[in-house]
Amino acid sequence: MTVQNSTAVYSALIESELKETRNFMTQQLQCSDERLAEFTDYIKKRQGKMLRASVLLLCGKLTGRITKLHISIAGTVEMIHSATLLHDDVIDNSTIRRFQPTANRLWGANQAVLLGDFILSRAFAALLLFGRNDVNKIIGDTAGIICQGEMLQNKYRGNFNISVEDYLDIIAKKTAVFFAASAQLGAVISGADQQTSKNLYDFGLNLGIAFQIADDLADVAANENQTGKTTGRDLENKIPTLPTIKNTDFTKEQIVRYQQKALNIIACFNESPAAKALKELTMQTA
Amino acid sequence: MTVQNSTAVYSALIESELKETRNFMTQQLQCSDERLAEFTDYIKKRQGKMLRASVLLLCGKLTGRITKLHISIAGTVEMIHSATLLHDDVIDNSTIRRFQPTANRLWGANQAVLLGDFILSRAFAALLLFGRNDVNKIIGDTAGIICQGEMLQNKYRGNFNISVEDYLDIIAKKTAVFFAASAQLGAVISGADQQTSKNLYDFGLNLGIAFQIADDLADVAANENQTGKTTGRDLENKIPTLPTIKNTDFTKEQIVRYQQKALNIIACFNESPAAKALKELTMQTA
Repeated sequence: MTVQNSTAVYSALIESELKETRNFMTQQLQCSDERLAEFTDYIKKRQGKMLRASVLLLCGKLTGRITKLHISIAGTVEMIHSATLLHDDVIDNSTIRRFQPTANRLWGANQAVLLGDFILSRAFAALLLFGRNDVNKIIGDTAGIICQGEMLQNKYRGNFNISVEDYLDIIAKKTAVFFAASAQLGAVISGADQQTSKNLYDFGLNLGIAFQIADDLADVAANENQTGKTTGRDLENKIPTLPTIKNTDFTKEQIVRYQQKALNIIACFNESPAAKALKELTMQTA
Repeated sequence: MTVQNSTAVYSALIESELKETRNFMTQQLQCSDERLAEFTDYIKKRQGKMLRASVLLLCGKLTGRITKLHISIAGTVEMIHSATLLHDDVIDNSTIRRFQPTANRLWGANQAVLLGDFILSRAFAALLLFGRNDVNKIIGDTAGIICQGEMLQNKYRGNFNISVEDYLDIIAKKTAVFFAASAQLGAVISGADQQTSKNLYDFGLNLGIAFQIADDLADVAANENQTGKTTGRDLENKIPTLPTIKNTDFTKEQIVRYQQKALNIIACFNESPAAKALKELTMQTA
């Protein structure tokens, strides 16, 4: 279980596509008002690991050919993710993210909330123009579920008697459905059949669950030099996570379990560079 | 200058359409998770004055016939507005809105931020499915400008040397463009020509500026029984507004000035119940 970094092997296969995705995001975050440049520049500079974009692009490659729409939707997905991180950091009162001070630390919670809203608005504005109803429905539904997951997490704050099932339900909603939707979107845009898209959705869901459990474990076990963000926050914020409601061994078992479920789905596809990269990503992520 | 209430005369003309708009919002905010019902119920119960929906519907009626799309877009506009109010109340630390405790007072700032995100997601998810690119572009662009206006306001916090021009620029962005877009949307959905839509955009812009100046004046001059929300917050939050950077008389002059600009635009349309209602709305709003 290592923290994935930007030099990961899997990303070599989609290097140029990830670069185009970053360019798309930079364009969408353009703001004509000079007075706001410091805020939008902050976001452009902190584009992070692009994990959801990578899942989308690799699943697109696994099932077809990468198009301009794959790039744009990958960028939109990462913009929505950036917005949720800004709001998460406000909610958790975090001060470090991606090895840099968080927006709430730099400019206060207020500006961080607004900056998140701005990015979310720009992401949806981009989507609204593509006019792909199938793609839009997936993203629209997913955004609503993520918010529900976050609200549920808030509701269970301080409740360390939460069942493993309720914990899994929360992390599926707040984190894993976004990975699931990213994988599905890659396939849908490539024109994959419904069953294939569904299989890749399930791949993303299991990957996302493994990822979040590993993230929760790192919050209690790792330090800031390893994760690049404030650690120990979950306990401080009274958020029940698997390592705190159960124990480290059980938590590690669950990571491997969901990782294996994800790998089993990719194993059903023909061998290809994209399949290999998705397996690597799964192993490195969680 | 009286605070508009829900029994306003102008709304009689669109009573059934406003009811349909409320129903649309209730449907969109449906949430299958019982555990989150208290949060979504809160929003359903606090749908407020529906001022932006009224502007949209009346401008739709002024230039044609109200369709199902007018209703849906009016509902979407009010949902986006609700989301911005939730975040505004967090940012201003307000405790009363629409004569009720704010979401941040009831459940804390965190849940209020997330609830705002949820409503915003649901609003955009609805929009994404209508597939009307012209409508979507207006709303997408407007949402981005509103966030920019709010960020600018935040940036000028504590600066009571702000010029009247900069103050007007901020309130145009954070408030008036939303009224402008609502008026324009009513016309666009009715199939009005470009010049008519542009004129109604300008109507909404002037109305929105007058509305925000009046709102800023009420914050210093009125009490909570009159406005139904926490007053005196702007000064407490160090937000420079026209009555505090200039004086009450100058502020009242400006309200009348922008109100008159709005009325002059409606005066160019043939007399009709919708034109009369828009004049009434303008007089009552600011």
